[in-house]
Amino acid sequence: MRRLKSIAVVGVGLIGGSFALAMRRAGAVTRIVGVDRDAQALERAASLGVIDTVTQSASEAAAGADLVFVAVPVRAMGPVLHDVALGLGPDAVVTDAGSTKADVVRTAGEELRERIARFVPGHPIAGRESSGVDAAVADLFRGARVVLTPDAATSPGATALVRSCWEACGARVTEMPATAHDRVFASVSHLPHLLAFALVSEIVSRPDAADLLGFAAGGFRDFTRIAASSPEMWRDIALANREALLEEIDRYCARVAVFRELVARGDASGLQRLMTEARNARRAWPGGKRSSSDE
Amino acid sequence: MRRLKSIAVVGVGLIGGSFALAMRRAGAVTRIVGVDRDAQALERAASLGVIDTVTQSASEAAAGADLVFVAVPVRAMGPVLHDVALGLGPDAVVTDAGSTKADVVRTAGEELRERIARFVPGHPIAGRESSGVDAAVADLFRGARVVLTPDAATSPGATALVRSCWEACGARVTEMPATAHDRVFASVSHLPHLLAFALVSEIVSRPDAADLLGFAAGGFRDFTRIAASSPEMWRDIALANREALLEEIDRYCARVAVFRELVARGDASGLQRLMTEARNARRAWPGGKRSSSDE
Repeated sequence: MRRLKSIAVVGVGLIGGSFALAMRRAGAVTRIVGVDRDAQALERAASLGVIDTVTQSASEAAAGADLVFVAVPVRAMGPVLHDVALGLGPDAVVTDAGSTKADVVRTAGEELRERIARFVPGHPIAGRESSGVDAAVADLFRGARVVLTPDAATSPGATALVRSCWEACGARVTEMPATAHDRVFASVSHLPHLLAFALVSEIVSRPDAADLLGFAAGGFRDFTRIAASSPEMWRDIALANREALLEEIDRYCARVAVFRELVARGDASGLQRLMTEARNARRAWPGGKRSSSDE
Repeated sequence: MRRLKSIAVVGVGLIGGSFALAMRRAGAVTRIVGVDRDAQALERAASLGVIDTVTQSASEAAAGADLVFVAVPVRAMGPVLHDVALGLGPDAVVTDAGSTKADVVRTAGEELRERIARFVPGHPIAGRESSGVDAAVADLFRGARVVLTPDAATSPGATALVRSCWEACGARVTEMPATAHDRVFASVSHLPHLLAFALVSEIVSRPDAADLLGFAAGGFRDFTRIAASSPEMWRDIALANREALLEEIDRYCARVAVFRELVARGDASGLQRLMTEARNARRAWPGGKRSSSDE
């Protein structure tokens, strides 16, 4: 890819910081401007060498940037894109790292208006247990998948630029429609998070919760690990992807009802058939081995 | 504890083998007889030094044993206890390692009859990813919890003997009624297993299952790890603990319905409240760190 003169990273946390580090290591950018509403985080990012210059104004950062990378919580996307639009140059490209896409595309349309062709919606499937710029690492995206959801309004050149940046970071890029993205992630990410929160929520609502947890072991530990995730983030994702998530909840509850019925009528062979199918699929899944990747 | 002359281990797999190794290391037993319907596994256990002598007859093994340790799948418990009863000496004690207890107590009553006072139902909360005697290790139970469920019919001396054996293996022993045990484990173990099987089962039932799994990441991986468990074992546990499990499924589905309603009506503060409670409880849970323990 051609070396970019300047990138603006809005939201210098784990994802924004890791993108900056990866782009710099790839030699894909000369200067990185960091933007964050948290001035301390911003200074920390600068002192770690993650970014070169700092500002608290997204419009100021966007002015002169070849690429604006927006890595803020989904709920902050509207105001941030509004500010970005104020400073954005005519050839600049904007992309994001939000976990949901149809709502971001909607918001981007409202805020960027006639500049929407320069916006390439994106979702890097990567993360770590810890957050913040101190957790940022240059190889966070190495081998990770990144989904881009350009549509008919998106400039092919803008999509190509964002794709080449992610590839420079070591990621594997896939394109799909925003609604397809949201259905996929409702199924394999948003639903499991909601289910894990619900299990712990049910247990802690009981008077004997401490006794129950005292006997919980490794299966419970792994099943509920994601219930230790940020409530703000998962609340926002659940609401941003409401329709697809509701559909997934209903499909899932229907399947649990099938299992319940098999247990209730003592159907050993029916239970074994479904459990064996699931076991075989889970064992065959290449992602089944432990790694540091996360969503 | 007094050193036992002879222990019979019926079912020389991960649990039976590890119990034999732990008791031997503790110097708590002189001679260990192994019983298994799988002659190869039996020879393997003898060649590894896990057991001293072998037989395929549980009644032969029980004759002369101070303690009979039954570590077979729950569905095999009836025939095994039937054979054990045929050989059991007047002062011998029998215990088991089944994951459910009320059904084992019922089966033991039918098979041991007037000898039921010598039976101490037990459940060690320990395991590993791998199974079989090759996976057996002397420290499997070190720091692990073991639940014993003696009732009014159980000889206090028999319970004391079994407790001292587990303590010699390094375990922490708790006593509770069998029905309480089954409720606790329906909640923190049997339900999560069924839910994980159900999630993978729902996904593999779709034509685009491979695409969905291609985007699944770390959250999905940990949530569904237990869906790679033995379908036979979890089918049997689900059916053996049917009533408690059905009650847990219903409680859980009611809680998921609460989350669904909050998502459907866009209740951000309601969602955040429940998710925060769950997150805090999960983070405060001392078992939350990774270890090799499992159920």
